[in-house]
Amino acid sequence: MTDITMIRAAQARLDGHARRTPLLSSPFLDEIAGRHVYVKPECLQHTGSFKYRGGRSAVSALDPETRARGVIAFSSGNHAQGVALAAQQFGVPCVIIMPADAPRLKIDNTRALGAEVALYDRAHEDRDALGAALSAARGLTLIKPFDEPQVIAGQGTVGLEIAEDARALGLETADVLVCCGGGGLTSGIALALEAEAKGLRARPVEPEDFDDTARSLASGEIQRNTRLSGSLCDAIITPQPGDLTFPIMSRLCGPGITVSEDEALRAMAHAFQRLKLVAEPGGAVALAAALFHGDEIEGDAVIVTISGGNVDAATFRTALGLLE
Amino acid sequence: MTDITMIRAAQARLDGHARRTPLLSSPFLDEIAGRHVYVKPECLQHTGSFKYRGGRSAVSALDPETRARGVIAFSSGNHAQGVALAAQQFGVPCVIIMPADAPRLKIDNTRALGAEVALYDRAHEDRDALGAALSAARGLTLIKPFDEPQVIAGQGTVGLEIAEDARALGLETADVLVCCGGGGLTSGIALALEAEAKGLRARPVEPEDFDDTARSLASGEIQRNTRLSGSLCDAIITPQPGDLTFPIMSRLCGPGITVSEDEALRAMAHAFQRLKLVAEPGGAVALAAALFHGDEIEGDAVIVTISGGNVDAATFRTALGLLE
Repeated sequence: MTDITMIRAAQARLDGHARRTPLLSSPFLDEIAGRHVYVKPECLQHTGSFKYRGGRSAVSALDPETRARGVIAFSSGNHAQGVALAAQQFGVPCVIIMPADAPRLKIDNTRALGAEVALYDRAHEDRDALGAALSAARGLTLIKPFDEPQVIAGQGTVGLEIAEDARALGLETADVLVCCGGGGLTSGIALALEAEAKGLRARPVEPEDFDDTARSLASGEIQRNTRLSGSLCDAIITPQPGDLTFPIMSRLCGPGITVSEDEALRAMAHAFQRLKLVAEPGGAVALAAALFHGDEIEGDAVIVTISGGNVDAATFRTALGLLE
Repeated sequence: MTDITMIRAAQARLDGHARRTPLLSSPFLDEIAGRHVYVKPECLQHTGSFKYRGGRSAVSALDPETRARGVIAFSSGNHAQGVALAAQQFGVPCVIIMPADAPRLKIDNTRALGAEVALYDRAHEDRDALGAALSAARGLTLIKPFDEPQVIAGQGTVGLEIAEDARALGLETADVLVCCGGGGLTSGIALALEAEAKGLRARPVEPEDFDDTARSLASGEIQRNTRLSGSLCDAIITPQPGDLTFPIMSRLCGPGITVSEDEALRAMAHAFQRLKLVAEPGGAVALAAALFHGDEIEGDAVIVTISGGNVDAATFRTALGLLE
């Protein structure tokens, strides 16, 4: 189980590899939010999302012999690129299993990072069986996207950096809003803050209709989403919180917040205009909560993650249209 | 005259105020350019451009009594916001003189940073006379946008950071491509590199048809642009290199490079897709040179500035359209 010692060890392994992202701010965002807003821009991380941290943490934690045989992951998105880059940096094989109808750009980007992309037919093939067969045949290690202790530890390094920067700002108490899918980033940050910044409280933020974590936290039991597609915020849609991440979130996190797609798009437009950052819809939900759900937040300051910036031009143009 | 001692002193005055921007990179950009590309994203600086450094440097260098009377600047763009924020931070008056037909958003943004905006009618009023009258009546100090030693010193802090990061990367020789208007940033960086990284060479990059600095460097004498408007890259259009900046550039810089508007827009699209950064057209010319003018550059690596990100949504949407 992930603990602060594992997070600190992950930080040491990531040193010199993961980007140390800053906390950014703008008086214009403060004005909209009615409090100070500090933004942790993980869209500037390698591969454009925080997922590189978890991928690099997990790959670097393997014993060298196991690692040399290679790794495998199921993902058509940010986790795929994070694991692929980490494997490439270690010079070990990486297989990414994606549905054959995944966007061409995502397939190409993952291949460009040196990974072998194995496509399957969603209608007729069982991706888990395909993954198991490949793993068995080649001795590949599966890197799960969130319910994996070393992945959570890697994402937790975001929390260590937030704690350090908050201390430098003299910020002792604040909500830390985290874009939440399976809860790897949220639980990792929560563990880091528990150890390093007791006055900071992690809170998951999700899109409306995909608020499995908020409902799970409220009820005390893991709840599922009723649907799994049809959201612009696809990067952070998962069936339910993880078996490892949920107990951590349940113990440490404040209540979840949900935002609409329109709010996420407007937050993207504000990040463009005021921070000069590209956020993906799922990566903008925490900023949307800070800007448009201020009555659900406590304190004079709030910290938000922008978890990723991997958005296609058409969606980004839609968001910018809201400024005109 | 600005020298390395003044730049180091400016760095000390900016410490804890200006953002320490990183050097970013992407394997996808390296692929296009055919060499390693390192990007200095000053679009992430306060007010969205490097101009805050020069503004803060100049305002902080004034003796307290003079500063308390306030400052004045002519600008409808990035320099206005940089000076306004610096003055606001010192709690001193700031007057920005803008044409009455400047975009509403720029006027509003400058006012939101606490400045008093004095509008003049381009057709019937003399802005210099207006500025002189205001300065005389209120004892305001004029902060010029580039031909001012303490402004050049502030911009030079970008060069100190590039030198430090290049050293950490083991990068001993490279062209450093700088988006160039009046030459404040280019000359400041050139002075810093002369002292701190002798193998790095600053080179100005300008839009086609506004290549006054390239022509001035080639001829050895200050040359003017034949027109001053009609470029998407308006943030870096000036009549000619400065009387202070040109001798520095002439002594230290490599040949200028010019890029087309279309190349600048395509560079913006790549910065969006690969770096998750918002660049303005003028702020993207150096990246455009790295990506599309590789035959004019020497070495296995190149460093480029993104000088600013203050672009309207419509122009950004146009740039993104080039990706589709």
